[in-house]
Amino acid sequence: MTEPGHTATGPRRGHIPTETRDALTRRLKRIEGQVRGLQKMVDDERYCADVMVQIASAQEALSGVGRILLQNHLEHCVTDAIKSGDPAESERVVGELMTLWTR
Amino acid sequence: MTEPGHTATGPRRGHIPTETRDALTRRLKRIEGQVRGLQKMVDDERYCADVMVQIASAQEALSGVGRILLQNHLEHCVTDAIKSGDPAESERVVGELMTLWTR
Amino acid sequence: MTEPGHTATGPRRGHIPTETRDALTRRLKRIEGQVRGLQKMVDDERYCADVMVQIASAQEALSGVGRILLQNHLEHCVTDAIKSGDPAESERVVGELMTLWTR
Amino acid sequence: MTEPGHTATGPRRGHIPTETRDALTRRLKRIEGQVRGLQKMVDDERYCADVMVQIASAQEALSGVGRILLQNHLEHCVTDAIKSGDPAESERVVGELMTLWTR
Repeated sequence: MTEPGHTATGPRRGHIPTETRDALTRRLKRIEGQVRGLQKMVDDERYCADVMVQIASAQEALSGVGRILLQNHLEHCVTDAIKSGDPAESERVVGELMTLWTR
Repeated sequence: MTEPGHTATGPRRGHIPTETRDALTRRLKRIEGQVRGLQKMVDDERYCADVMVQIASAQEALSGVGRILLQNHLEHCVTDAIKSGDPAESERVVGELMTLWTR
Repeated sequence: MTEPGHTATGPRRGHIPTETRDALTRRLKRIEGQVRGLQKMVDDERYCADVMVQIASAQEALSGVGRILLQNHLEHCVTDAIKSGDPAESERVVGELMTLWTR
Repeated sequence: MTEPGHTATGPRRGHIPTETRDALTRRLKRIEGQVRGLQKMVDDERYCADVMVQIASAQEALSGVGRILLQNHLEHCVTDAIKSGDPAESERVVGELMTLWTR
C-alpha cells in the first residue's frame, strides 16, 4: 500500500488540470528564455544594475508560477487530504505548507 | 559625450572581471537546467509541494547570482561613481541601489 | 445568521488555544520593546547600518509570530472550513491563504 | 584613535539629519502602536488571517523605515567612507551593505 501522494515505484504525483499545466509550461519556457537572456547580458558585460533588474524579474516570474501551484495545491491536494478525515494526512499537508511558507 | 555607464550606440556597460563572469555563467547555466527540470516536473504532474520546493530552490540560486552582481556593482560601478566626485553620478548610483533594494 | 468566522456585531473571531495565545503575547511584547529600542537608537543617532540590523531582527520576530498564527490557522480555521463540506467556505479560506502568501 | 563610525566610549554613531530623524521617530511610534494593536487582536482572539494581515502591514512599515535609513546610509556614511580614499573603509561599507542585503 502507498500513502496518498506517493506511488510505490516513483516520485509523488499531484493533480494539475491540463489547462493549469499548459499555463505553467508556457510561463516556465518564458522564464527559461529570461535565464538565457541573463547569460547573454553577463557575456556582454552589461551594467550590473541592469542585470540585477532582470534577475528580480525572473524571480518574480518564478513567484508567479509558485502562486499558480499553491492555488492548485490548496484546491486539490490540501483539500483532499483534509477531507479524507485521516488526521495523519491533515498533519502532513499542514506541515508541508508550513515548510513552503518559511522558504 | 556619453554618461558613465552608457555608450552612444547601445545598452549600458559595466565591469565584470573574467573570473566573476565565469562564475556567473556557470551558475546561470545550472539555473537554466533547474528551470527545464521544473518543466519536466510539471509535465510529469509531480506533487505540487515538491515542485514548489524546486521553485524556491531556483529563486534562491538566482538570489545567489544577484548577490555576486551586487558585490561587483558596489566594488566597481558604485565606488567609481562616488569617487568621480560628480554629485550627479553619486545620486544616480544611490537611486539605482534604492530601486534594487525595493525589488 | 452569520457566516462562520463572523459575528453579527463585530470583527471576525478565530480560535487560538490559550497556550498559543500566551506565546504570541510574550513575543509581541518583546517586539514592542524592540521597536522602542529602535526609537532610542534613532534618537541617539546610532550608525544606520546598526539600526538596519535591528529592523531586520524585528521583522524576523514578526515573521515568527506570523508562522505561529499560520500554523494555528491551518490546523483550526482552514481545517474546519474544508471539513464543513461547504464549497463556499473552502473557497474562502483558499482565497485568504493566497492573499496572505502574496503579501 | 577611533575608526570612523566608532567612538572610543560607546556604540558607533551615524549621521541622521534632524528632519529624517523626526520622520523615522514618527513612523516608529506608529509601528509601536501597530504592535500593541496586534497584542489586542490576539487577546480578543481575532480571526488569525486578519491578525496575519496586520503583521504583514507592520513588517511593511518597518521596511519603509529601513528604506529611509538605507537612503541616508548611502548618501552619508557610504559616500563618506568611499570618498575617504581609504580602501579599508570602502571594504567595510561594502561588506556591511552585503550583509544587510542578505537579511
